[in-house]
Amino acid sequence: MAYVPRTRLFVEAPLAAGAAVALSEGQGHYLTHVMRAGAGARVRVFNGADGEWEAEVVIPAKRRTALSVTTQTRTQQGVPDVELVFAPVKRIEFLVEKATELGARALAPVFTRRTTIARVNLPRLRAHTVEAAEQSDRLSVPTIAEAVPLMDALARWPEGRRLYFLDETGGGVPIKDAFGAEAGCSFLTGPEGGFEQTELDALRQLPFAKAVGLGPRVLRAETAALAALACWQALRGDWQGNRGGRPLHA
Amino acid sequence: MAYVPRTRLFVEAPLAAGAAVALSEGQGHYLTHVMRAGAGARVRVFNGADGEWEAEVVIPAKRRTALSVTTQTRTQQGVPDVELVFAPVKRIEFLVEKATELGARALAPVFTRRTTIARVNLPRLRAHTVEAAEQSDRLSVPTIAEAVPLMDALARWPEGRRLYFLDETGGGVPIKDAFGAEAGCSFLTGPEGGFEQTELDALRQLPFAKAVGLGPRVLRAETAALAALACWQALRGDWQGNRGGRPLHA
Repeated sequence: MAYVPRTRLFVEAPLAAGAAVALSEGQGHYLTHVMRAGAGARVRVFNGADGEWEAEVVIPAKRRTALSVTTQTRTQQGVPDVELVFAPVKRIEFLVEKATELGARALAPVFTRRTTIARVNLPRLRAHTVEAAEQSDRLSVPTIAEAVPLMDALARWPEGRRLYFLDETGGGVPIKDAFGAEAGCSFLTGPEGGFEQTELDALRQLPFAKAVGLGPRVLRAETAALAALACWQALRGDWQGNRGGRPLHA
Repeated sequence: MAYVPRTRLFVEAPLAAGAAVALSEGQGHYLTHVMRAGAGARVRVFNGADGEWEAEVVIPAKRRTALSVTTQTRTQQGVPDVELVFAPVKRIEFLVEKATELGARALAPVFTRRTTIARVNLPRLRAHTVEAAEQSDRLSVPTIAEAVPLMDALARWPEGRRLYFLDETGGGVPIKDAFGAEAGCSFLTGPEGGFEQTELDALRQLPFAKAVGLGPRVLRAETAALAALACWQALRGDWQGNRGGRPLHA
């Protein structure tokens, strides 16, 4: 099998054969000091738009590492249209990392009544999604919306979009039976303390929202989010096919 | 709805109406110093055999807290027969916590060729499974086997038991199509660096082993384990029913 460089970097620059790409200082440090990559070292790069490319280190330097893009290794492909709307939890970084691996296209933090996290550090979450995208062979990084109150998000919900909310009271439809024929959807998970009754009542009134159940045990918020994404990818998303052998990494 | 004490404790003692239960020092400390529970405070207890019971604090004391068991709140129920056989990873504590929430009945660490963790601290893992069982309303704690080399585990594999191994090369059957009619099964996940080719070759020769795929992205070992358990519970385990409303916690 062809040799494929293991190191993968997300970059902002356009990618095409012969293009020059300047790395950020953090990436330059990682490549030259952690990976000990010198001139001629090969990496893979992606930018969310132009697929994945091989590139060669031209100038190795902490502050101004430059790459030269060589050949395309994959054409751009999106992830299925699944969004995670979630109350921020203590383990939020873990949650966004796993949601990225599991192929969420978009992440939308929302403040619920029992949410105890007052502020969401978007640049920090963004860094976690970039790293998870690099490591998981994604060709894109999930978007992260500004955190808004749950009720605001529901009030301006996109028409026709299905919202599955994880109902920890046990009243939801078993997840394997929950999904309709819709092309995309959103999942909503609560904070550590769960939704308040008023929130559950409001959700149950919404025509686009549907309660989903994940069995008899009480799952932590982050566990429920990941389990729901995994089940959806398996049943409706891009886990339905066989990708038929991946090139081994170097 | 009836008031249900939120605090749940796993105990070793037999449980029946009127039974006296002495708590461990750790539990006594938690109850009296963290939860500030005095005489008469109510908790729930379970021991993996006798269901779940309410109990009252009789003697609150750090070292010798004693409970008196009052009424049964749930009869004993098992979890479905699903086992996680896993190479220890750096995030092993997270892995066993999540596997407990997701209803694994048994956990079996195995050393693979690329496993970098040399020793598994079973008492520490046990503590994590107990805590996760307490918090997730489980009535039992998963068993944890002694860590053995993967090839030893395969050599003495129980006859007739299905093993699904998570094939990160992408050659596996999509998970939604993988499961047969077997009542129970085991999942096998590799270490951070994945299985070695020789291990994959050996697994593919085994009549009881079947490669399963989890889509086009590269999942971390712990993510793959949790995703597989979630999909199995949804499709074959105890997430297929609706538990129809859970009493609210106090």
